[in-house]
Amino acid sequence: MSDVAIGVDVGGTKSLALLVARDGRVLGERVEATPHEPANAPGHATAATVEKLVRALCEPLGLRPDALPVGLGLAGMVRRDGRLAFAPNLPGASGAEVGTLLGVALGSSLVVVENDANCAARAEHAWGAARGVANFVMVTLGTGIGGGVVSNGSLMRGQSGFAGEIGHMVVAAHGAPCPCGGRGCWERYASGGGLRRLALEAISEGRLADLAESVGDVADLRAEDVVTRARAGDAEALSLMAEMGWWLARGVANLSAILDCGHFLVGGGLGAASELFLPSTRTALVHLVEGYHARAEITVTPSLFGPRSGALGAALVALERLT
Amino acid sequence: MSDVAIGVDVGGTKSLALLVARDGRVLGERVEATPHEPANAPGHATAATVEKLVRALCEPLGLRPDALPVGLGLAGMVRRDGRLAFAPNLPGASGAEVGTLLGVALGSSLVVVENDANCAARAEHAWGAARGVANFVMVTLGTGIGGGVVSNGSLMRGQSGFAGEIGHMVVAAHGAPCPCGGRGCWERYASGGGLRRLALEAISEGRLADLAESVGDVADLRAEDVVTRARAGDAEALSLMAEMGWWLARGVANLSAILDCGHFLVGGGLGAASELFLPSTRTALVHLVEGYHARAEITVTPSLFGPRSGALGAALVALERLT
Repeated sequence: MSDVAIGVDVGGTKSLALLVARDGRVLGERVEATPHEPANAPGHATAATVEKLVRALCEPLGLRPDALPVGLGLAGMVRRDGRLAFAPNLPGASGAEVGTLLGVALGSSLVVVENDANCAARAEHAWGAARGVANFVMVTLGTGIGGGVVSNGSLMRGQSGFAGEIGHMVVAAHGAPCPCGGRGCWERYASGGGLRRLALEAISEGRLADLAESVGDVADLRAEDVVTRARAGDAEALSLMAEMGWWLARGVANLSAILDCGHFLVGGGLGAASELFLPSTRTALVHLVEGYHARAEITVTPSLFGPRSGALGAALVALERLT
Repeated sequence: MSDVAIGVDVGGTKSLALLVARDGRVLGERVEATPHEPANAPGHATAATVEKLVRALCEPLGLRPDALPVGLGLAGMVRRDGRLAFAPNLPGASGAEVGTLLGVALGSSLVVVENDANCAARAEHAWGAARGVANFVMVTLGTGIGGGVVSNGSLMRGQSGFAGEIGHMVVAAHGAPCPCGGRGCWERYASGGGLRRLALEAISEGRLADLAESVGDVADLRAEDVVTRARAGDAEALSLMAEMGWWLARGVANLSAILDCGHFLVGGGLGAASELFLPSTRTALVHLVEGYHARAEITVTPSLFGPRSGALGAALVALERLT
């Protein structure tokens, strides 16, 4: 029985690997850019990147990569059997057996695959901001929006394991095109990718001129650039963060109507900038939630582990299922 | 222990009362228009209407109205303690103690209150189209859209009992105003009220001229008028039914993303016309559900009891909780 495991969160932009002890302590950390998959060998580039991360964590400590439980959190629809069925934010990896490929590469049978936001929910529930909370929704704001719904203390999984794909709840029918093939998905408005899209839209309308100038080619604009300018006090950037906060509330209000859940944790990369948008989210909720004043309080708060929840939770899932 | 109960479904337009045996057989039926509540005595008019229905069912059979379990299904947010917290489609009844008022009027302590769509879900689960189905969503298409989510064989209730308020999931941010105070709620596009609104919109754009002429004052237009003309083969009315079917799919796709639920039952008054819109719903789902082809089949089928599910289920809830 291993007392440590590796958790890897493969997001749309970055892949983060953590070496984690059974009590949640982080013993090591590595990060790589998530690779683009060539069309002819789906999953191989991702598996190779994860293999590299795992070996890099093991080597300095003399750990054997084939003897350590590894949990993979993938940004997409992960079947109960671990297969990545569909992943709009990991282009080319849809349908890939990333877990199997990694197991072969490491010579290990100790690999488990789960949805990245489900992992984040597990970590926050076990060790983080949702300790002792039986009902909450984990909302990860990264390239897209991931979701993990905890109901009566357990992760809601659905018939195939795909429950919690909240980023592809459409909030604006006929709205902005989404990599999933749909239009108007929540994540086109309230994730890192959504913030970038809102910024490009604003720039095309002549707003955010200072930001546009600072990045040069707007194609290179990242969500982080908006956050940086907002933190520096740029009024237009602050206003855009508030706009994104409104859209976050729009989806939270929908989930409140459907699930009657009172607690929402916000994590992911953009979650680290929550002070710039959560005040706007909370103000908007009062107007956007059906029967707001007839309900119990609805809290929307930052997760404890932020962008690390996914990798922490992937390690936790590995420890739970493989040891 | 009573072997019969009365179930009353108080909808936005009509109130239906059924005398129901423990095995689901219907022994009597009465219907009244749902009254408008005066602002100074919320719930009293509704309670009086229900009292009249209950007495009318009891009298011919010599049953004592104070000795019979009565279940009330209300179109709105019903607390676990039976209080109607918020009800956009029962104007004036929000916050009313309808169950208590009815109990006083009947001299009975055998009154229980539940959300109408939750009742419908229970009836279809026990006796109808969802027998043996552990995971499904009941979608009632009436004045608004009601919802009952059954997960692992049990009704999802949420922290206050409000879960399943799917009609107020917003699918078109900044869209059509809703009686709930919001904009772009699903029920503004895919219920009886939504169909009426779509028809009025079409008429204002010069479409549906024959329908407009047939009703005279368009303010009197009802969803049923559109259904009648569609059944008669009116191409524009048929096209509007298909448009409503698309909007139904829009919300079903959202619920699939969030819950990963594979079965949807369509009931309520408009559910009786499902042959006019479900084909369009099913076609649209293929394009609207994230990762449709990577998922298990999603079925959207008519409920067995149609507009009677709510009252049947209210009787069932009364039998379960009061006997």
